[in-house]
Amino acid sequence: MNPTITAFERSPDGGRGLARDTRVRWAIEEVGQPYAVRRVSFKAMKQPAHLALHPFGQIPTFEDGDLALFETGAIVLHIAERHPGLLPKDPNARARAITWMFAALNTVEPPILDREQTPYVVGDKPWCAELLPLLDDRVRHRLRQLSAHLGHSEWLDGAFSAGDLMMVSVLLRLKSLALLEEFPNLKAYLARGEARPAYQRAFAAQLLVNAGKPPAD
Amino acid sequence: MNPTITAFERSPDGGRGLARDTRVRWAIEEVGQPYAVRRVSFKAMKQPAHLALHPFGQIPTFEDGDLALFETGAIVLHIAERHPGLLPKDPNARARAITWMFAALNTVEPPILDREQTPYVVGDKPWCAELLPLLDDRVRHRLRQLSAHLGHSEWLDGAFSAGDLMMVSVLLRLKSLALLEEFPNLKAYLARGEARPAYQRAFAAQLLVNAGKPPAD
Repeated sequence: MNPTITAFERSPDGGRGLARDTRVRWAIEEVGQPYAVRRVSFKAMKQPAHLALHPFGQIPTFEDGDLALFETGAIVLHIAERHPGLLPKDPNARARAITWMFAALNTVEPPILDREQTPYVVGDKPWCAELLPLLDDRVRHRLRQLSAHLGHSEWLDGAFSAGDLMMVSVLLRLKSLALLEEFPNLKAYLARGEARPAYQRAFAAQLLVNAGKPPAD
Repeated sequence: MNPTITAFERSPDGGRGLARDTRVRWAIEEVGQPYAVRRVSFKAMKQPAHLALHPFGQIPTFEDGDLALFETGAIVLHIAERHPGLLPKDPNARARAITWMFAALNTVEPPILDREQTPYVVGDKPWCAELLPLLDDRVRHRLRQLSAHLGHSEWLDGAFSAGDLMMVSVLLRLKSLALLEEFPNLKAYLARGEARPAYQRAFAAQLLVNAGKPPAD
């Protein structure tokens, strides 16, 4: 049986590909493996059957035989370790590619996620307009450092790796904000990631089920 | 030559062990390896020599021969992969332990870090008192889920692993907040982590250089 991942029944982003199953779909497409998707409603995500798979009640999960994993980073690393295409063979280059996975998820994504979610949480407060520019600056600080590291390189460290897959996925969140315009090399890097055939297949697969507004439940 | 990590010249926390080098020290102590520490001033952290090691200008870094890594998660995983003691031998249990590392860093730590840092950023704003309870609730939500998963178990998934090392390290940030009091099983879990001889050695080593206030620069 093929590995099975979970995804939103209908993604709240209406098919923009920002739900984290897209990252796992992309990784699986890069290594050319088959997979199945089980869609989970918002209601089912909070119920015991799903919580047994994912203690934090989120998607994606990954099931392969008697192995069940959650956390996108762990799932992508698991796929990358078992199939060629996402991690270099040289042990040092491999460790550095994994470093970039962690950097994407722990150093670059948290301020971006915070900036993205804050309007939903305190958008009705009169002081939200004062808070957002501070959060923008936190994102800008990380983007400036990332941009300085990338320079004119195609990818973060040699050939495309799971580290780039994760960093591009994180930067995709910025497509609705103006911040990325300040860093042309990051914008071009993002475009290179999106142009990869494996990303295109992953995006198309999630679009097929997520286009349009999510259900109200 | 022994691997060398970097740490703050003097940690801003005055020796509470919350600087991320403590996590790496703990991992190295768990696997019983020798290591050296190079301390870096706040000024040096922003200069080219350090940025070449760590593009985001932080500590810790890890150097071993011609390998240089940054990102605590990647460094701890690298150590755990090369020495017995932090990851189970069974491949499925190993993948699950790595999942908990990512869960600690990506799902549990971001709201905690945000709650911890916000008073430093907007503490002078009249609306800060309105914002903090919302951030508390975000932390509480994750702690409730983590507490439900842990139940009466000693560790997150079977024997102590790098996943527990990272989760305990993340929860340590809550020691100065009252939130942890609401979850007695997480408080006991934290205490079990802190009681490990390897953690005690790591804590003592950082305390030796960090006790007292950090320099002003």
